[in-house]
Amino acid sequence: MTSELETAAVRHVRERVAALHAELVRYGLVVWTGGNVSGRVPGADLFVIKPSGVDYDDLAPENMILCTLDGVVVPGSLGSERSPSSDTAAHAYVYRNLPEVGGVVHTHSTYATAWAARAEAIPCVITAMADEFGGEIPVGPFAIIGDDSIGRGIVQTLNGHRSRAVLMQNHGVFTIGRDARDAVKAAVMAEDVARTVHIARQGGPLVPIPPEAVDRLFDRYQNVYGQNPEGTLA
Amino acid sequence: MTSELETAAVRHVRERVAALHAELVRYGLVVWTGGNVSGRVPGADLFVIKPSGVDYDDLAPENMILCTLDGVVVPGSLGSERSPSSDTAAHAYVYRNLPEVGGVVHTHSTYATAWAARAEAIPCVITAMADEFGGEIPVGPFAIIGDDSIGRGIVQTLNGHRSRAVLMQNHGVFTIGRDARDAVKAAVMAEDVARTVHIARQGGPLVPIPPEAVDRLFDRYQNVYGQNPEGTLA
Amino acid sequence: MTSELETAAVRHVRERVAALHAELVRYGLVVWTGGNVSGRVPGADLFVIKPSGVDYDDLAPENMILCTLDGVVVPGSLGSERSPSSDTAAHAYVYRNLPEVGGVVHTHSTYATAWAARAEAIPCVITAMADEFGGEIPVGPFAIIGDDSIGRGIVQTLNGHRSRAVLMQNHGVFTIGRDARDAVKAAVMAEDVARTVHIARQGGPLVPIPPEAVDRLFDRYQNVYGQNPEGTLA
Amino acid sequence: MTSELETAAVRHVRERVAALHAELVRYGLVVWTGGNVSGRVPGADLFVIKPSGVDYDDLAPENMILCTLDGVVVPGSLGSERSPSSDTAAHAYVYRNLPEVGGVVHTHSTYATAWAARAEAIPCVITAMADEFGGEIPVGPFAIIGDDSIGRGIVQTLNGHRSRAVLMQNHGVFTIGRDARDAVKAAVMAEDVARTVHIARQGGPLVPIPPEAVDRLFDRYQNVYGQNPEGTLA
Repeated sequence: MTSELETAAVRHVRERVAALHAELVRYGLVVWTGGNVSGRVPGADLFVIKPSGVDYDDLAPENMILCTLDGVVVPGSLGSERSPSSDTAAHAYVYRNLPEVGGVVHTHSTYATAWAARAEAIPCVITAMADEFGGEIPVGPFAIIGDDSIGRGIVQTLNGHRSRAVLMQNHGVFTIGRDARDAVKAAVMAEDVARTVHIARQGGPLVPIPPEAVDRLFDRYQNVYGQNPEGTLA
Repeated sequence: MTSELETAAVRHVRERVAALHAELVRYGLVVWTGGNVSGRVPGADLFVIKPSGVDYDDLAPENMILCTLDGVVVPGSLGSERSPSSDTAAHAYVYRNLPEVGGVVHTHSTYATAWAARAEAIPCVITAMADEFGGEIPVGPFAIIGDDSIGRGIVQTLNGHRSRAVLMQNHGVFTIGRDARDAVKAAVMAEDVARTVHIARQGGPLVPIPPEAVDRLFDRYQNVYGQNPEGTLA
Repeated sequence: MTSELETAAVRHVRERVAALHAELVRYGLVVWTGGNVSGRVPGADLFVIKPSGVDYDDLAPENMILCTLDGVVVPGSLGSERSPSSDTAAHAYVYRNLPEVGGVVHTHSTYATAWAARAEAIPCVITAMADEFGGEIPVGPFAIIGDDSIGRGIVQTLNGHRSRAVLMQNHGVFTIGRDARDAVKAAVMAEDVARTVHIARQGGPLVPIPPEAVDRLFDRYQNVYGQNPEGTLA
Repeated sequence: MTSELETAAVRHVRERVAALHAELVRYGLVVWTGGNVSGRVPGADLFVIKPSGVDYDDLAPENMILCTLDGVVVPGSLGSERSPSSDTAAHAYVYRNLPEVGGVVHTHSTYATAWAARAEAIPCVITAMADEFGGEIPVGPFAIIGDDSIGRGIVQTLNGHRSRAVLMQNHGVFTIGRDARDAVKAAVMAEDVARTVHIARQGGPLVPIPPEAVDRLFDRYQNVYGQNPEGTLA
């Protein structure tokens, strides 16, 4: 039964999702087995996510876990003898409710989580943040694991918002993207701006960026930057 | 005489303890020859600990040191020509007095030690801390090396406490676990939350987590997370 | 047509510029695809710059992009099928207006950008800063991408100034040098002093360095340090 | 002529000094070509030091520079075609005036330099600092390169002091040791405690360690720690 589930699309997403976890390590966004990346399987009501509590050194395409959009492991699929990430329900909720999202990332990266522990949005005072997030990075509600409340908090906060990152109060950061790589980029950039703005403010008052400049930067970056600009989700 | 001391269980613990020291380096918890990991030998009144003042690059199973629960090097055992870690007495005291503990770690990791230099417990304001430590990370007494006072301070503070980490005043952090790996995980997570909560508080007032949410998170994490949840010590 | 464009001088600059990007990674000045290095081709009205939005792991001499001093990609040159860095116009403006400049670097390195988010110059309170920058690191205007305003801000701020680094308000840091390596050194040192002075000031009042000592240090360093002292730009 | 200068003792010190520079890189104490290690040649009025302005990746025993205790390069010695570190005069002054010193290290490591920019001694509030430095790390005078004033400031501050590290005002840190490795250890530990105590104090008031406990810790560590305790310089 495994073989017919393992379509080329599934294999491709397994490879991408497994490999992208190395970026969380490279940029210091995770410790031990914390954090997780998932990616939607194009053309199917499925997504691929990291197993729970497995070392980053041991992640590989074949131990990524294939789930339905209800967050249930597909029986008989590769790796299905393991439990998926304990955040699987939140990822699934996002995929069910935001059809344009192709990737989700969750970390407890230090600076983003520090803002989350104060339930404080990160103000947009650097142009890289205007480019990437189109303004502030917002705060989502306090919600604990065990039902749909984390997923619902992510979706309610990000739906219609330019930002692809949300600081979940007292918890950490979730990011979304058009695919898993785009969501990982958002996670890397969210921590980078969380750190820079924190340090900036420790030194004295911040200079705001005029809102119309934020708008121009965001528009340009979504449409011009890179080799194959396609826009992002917002 | 060496051969009969080197049971399969001893060899296994030597390998694990030697290898786990690399995690202290990977996560930046130690500098130079500081810090140490030990592991109890299952089914024997023995534990294995790092030698004193040896480079992390040079640690290997055969130079780990086998001690009795009184902290005395087992004569004739592999590596017994060297001195054990100067913190051996504290580890031994923990093993004698907390029979469920299978591993002990000590570091002077930066942020944990910073809280310890103020004799201030780390408040539980992030869910990862509720998961892992079930509440605040407490402070133990000021005690200096040379007798049982460090070991006694660790045991008195952690006995019956949910936290597997204690900040020893003006000193550093000790963690315990069901085995050496579990204690290393606690050391990694203790520094991670020490850093995040420090940075969070530099930016303004922290939002507390309701105690009943802390309880629910701790219960769930001890029983559900990972591939083989077995609960931890607390 | 490619072959005659690829003179030995162009090939040499391609190799240097591609390789120097690794220094931005080594010193943690950039994340993801951010940041860029360029180098002027000696004896030609050309410079070589990083392509836009390409991973640091994938940079190589043959995908660096050759531009005229108007910031236009040289048609038919190696790599010309890609877009150059989105900061190419700013680099080009600097090369057109400061003929002694042979290299330009741009990053959003954390501490330099933090000072830029406050529009605050970095005061010269450490001798390494006097050596390298001859005094404070100044702030340039708020300017956004899309025309010559960033390049003009860099040139107006650095022209006649001892500093080879400018903090562009709400944006990041640009550095110049007699060649690409010298500009990269300035970027590394700018972040180093931005970090040290930030941390110093968090702890209390800074001790100023007398202006005549700053002058002596700068003079000496520009003329004596290293194996082949040739002076820098200022 | 080179061959008779290259005694076994000189070759040994060249190897040690070249290799020890990698520890400055490993612990993040230096950027670019900054920082330097030197080691006295036992039984000779000579020391070996890093060349000026050479990349850390390119340091090797044969390009270390052999100097007399006046800080003059030994003519015809290996590597003598290069300039020695610009801090050579300060190292030489220390070797001339403190005969028990066998190694000297200088860095601009971030946190130590931050205390130096405020001309503030680092208070002894953690036991690792009592062990290693026997109390506070003192501040030396403001002195600039070009004559003996840096060397004199180091010697006047450290002579008779327990600390093997001195924060030179507005400059950086110098450390001494019984050999080059011991001085490098002091440089690593000085930055570690500079960072920990800085961060600790950002969070609130520090708890002092009673002076008699500092004395006991220092005595014990100098005489008991490690595999071959021999005491240090103080």
